[in-house]
Amino acid sequence: MNEFFSSELKKYQTLIEREINSFFMKKEKEFSLHSIESKKLVSDMNEFTLRPGKRIRPILVLMGFKALKGKVDSKVIKAACALELLQSYLLIHDDVMDESPTRRGKTAFHKIYEHKMKKNKFIKASRFGESNAIIAGDLMHSLAVEILLECGMEKELLFKAVKKLIEINKLTAVGQQLDLLLESKKDFTKKDVLKVQEYKTAKYTIEGPLQLGAILAGADETQLKQLSDYAVPIGIAFQIHDDILGVFGSKETGKSSSSDLTEGKKTLLILKALEKGNLKQKNALNAVLGNKEATENQLNEARKAILESKSLDYSVNLAFTLSMDSINALNKTSFNEEVKRFLNEMNSFLVSRST
Amino acid sequence: MNEFFSSELKKYQTLIEREINSFFMKKEKEFSLHSIESKKLVSDMNEFTLRPGKRIRPILVLMGFKALKGKVDSKVIKAACALELLQSYLLIHDDVMDESPTRRGKTAFHKIYEHKMKKNKFIKASRFGESNAIIAGDLMHSLAVEILLECGMEKELLFKAVKKLIEINKLTAVGQQLDLLLESKKDFTKKDVLKVQEYKTAKYTIEGPLQLGAILAGADETQLKQLSDYAVPIGIAFQIHDDILGVFGSKETGKSSSSDLTEGKKTLLILKALEKGNLKQKNALNAVLGNKEATENQLNEARKAILESKSLDYSVNLAFTLSMDSINALNKTSFNEEVKRFLNEMNSFLVSRST
Repeated sequence: MNEFFSSELKKYQTLIEREINSFFMKKEKEFSLHSIESKKLVSDMNEFTLRPGKRIRPILVLMGFKALKGKVDSKVIKAACALELLQSYLLIHDDVMDESPTRRGKTAFHKIYEHKMKKNKFIKASRFGESNAIIAGDLMHSLAVEILLECGMEKELLFKAVKKLIEINKLTAVGQQLDLLLESKKDFTKKDVLKVQEYKTAKYTIEGPLQLGAILAGADETQLKQLSDYAVPIGIAFQIHDDILGVFGSKETGKSSSSDLTEGKKTLLILKALEKGNLKQKNALNAVLGNKEATENQLNEARKAILESKSLDYSVNLAFTLSMDSINALNKTSFNEEVKRFLNEMNSFLVSRST
Repeated sequence: MNEFFSSELKKYQTLIEREINSFFMKKEKEFSLHSIESKKLVSDMNEFTLRPGKRIRPILVLMGFKALKGKVDSKVIKAACALELLQSYLLIHDDVMDESPTRRGKTAFHKIYEHKMKKNKFIKASRFGESNAIIAGDLMHSLAVEILLECGMEKELLFKAVKKLIEINKLTAVGQQLDLLLESKKDFTKKDVLKVQEYKTAKYTIEGPLQLGAILAGADETQLKQLSDYAVPIGIAFQIHDDILGVFGSKETGKSSSSDLTEGKKTLLILKALEKGNLKQKNALNAVLGNKEATENQLNEARKAILESKSLDYSVNLAFTLSMDSINALNKTSFNEEVKRFLNEMNSFLVSRST
């Protein structure tokens, strides 16, 4: 990771996390007036939200704001936290949907309560945990809107920003629904895969946050479009790179990942290998896709098939091209130079990171 | 049902339902730009929301507004729909949590998609249905905020109204969490039960909507307190009456209900019978509570125990007293006379209805 990018990231992460923590402390006090149980729930929501993470979305809100204003202030930092709370609510619900036991290296939210209830010998502990997580996610969703409304900015801007936050949530739902449908489909196309990546990653993670920040700085339509032209290609490239890591793992640590294969995840990497590969290569892939009992040997054969069918090349090239489109779009703008530097370095990071 | 109350109800139901339908029509168009699947999802959300219902929450928004302004207008009707969309999202999520197969006489939202996927021979149809319903609920939650923001009222008022909507959602989460915990508890007290009723019913169904409407009419703190003094007692009384119907069913139709008993629902009616009953009465109750195989004979013995232990009297009296408190509070106010008449008649209806 480039030094400027990483030091900026660290600086803003600290500011964001401090703000989130102080918001939750206020909420704990508020909810303690209602019930000790809800105070505890809010405290668990704080712990969950503050688990180590990049805070990329709130930081991009700051960047969208700084792109126009040249600096950030305490109000926009508070507003930016809305995106981390939105992420937190979506993760809580996602883990219920995917039945994931862990999140950010710790117990998934619904599992925290499942474990508690199991200790109490409650027979419906698993359903209890899921129900409690659905409620916590719904509550967190409200808190995301609330922290934005309370950031102290002018009402006219806040009004637009809340509308943007709603739009981000709506488009993410479109992406999640498509992703869910994709999982259930036998046939899927490049268009399907790229659409999920556009909605679930590019719009949600990059475009939405940048635009929300810019809206708070009073951006016009042209400026919002410029941010979008940077955000969407790099967002998709990031996801393509992520899918490569999901099969080939980290080059640095030598650790490789197999869950994308054994879960039969519908990625461009896998789609292209099935499309371009010869019969032997297709067979090697089909032997592991969705097969949780695949052996290490079978997995390596599948990886070889992806390599030899040139599907890896295809994905790497597409990610590179998209990343270049994104950089070119950004360089044409007259945004704040520090922000452009940050976004360009983030761009390189997103398509070259190894973890 | 009193004629004035029922004709007012009908008049406003029509206005609310028309507005909800036209909002969803616009949303279908909007989502069709993203994917045909999300357009279909929005169309299913419309069908779900418009299934026959009393629309009591949006109508109470109108009453809160009219209490101060003397009339309603097209903007407040649009704003009021936010409460029906909030209700719709909560019902979708509730049915996932409770694993309920039906809602408003039709298939529960998660089951609609489960059935579709089963037809397609998708093996994880049940999980698919639940995931899709979690997403649809999250999307509906956003739409509830959106319809309020778009109602065309002055930004300063809307700002306060969105904060109120958030508060309603927060307090409902507190109530849902308490309810969930109550289900898992062996011991429960009157205080526990009344608190769930206060948060899940009184605040959510009566107080919140009335106050939100009043806020849109520019209410001050005194006026909001007056609405609360009417709303909370009748809200709790309504729930107590509902719990009576849940065991003794409709007097008119002679139809009786047993699910509250066989599911072991924690109601005041059951709590008091366990507290005041003699050993024989307690045994009769314990034989059916949470026992899905209880016979009709056993259920009748349990009902007799509730009657003979004077628990039914206790609940009926408490509901009556609360209903009177509510009426007295309202009559002291100088709200619009038509609204007072509507609310007083609603009050009687809520504690005397037989279905």
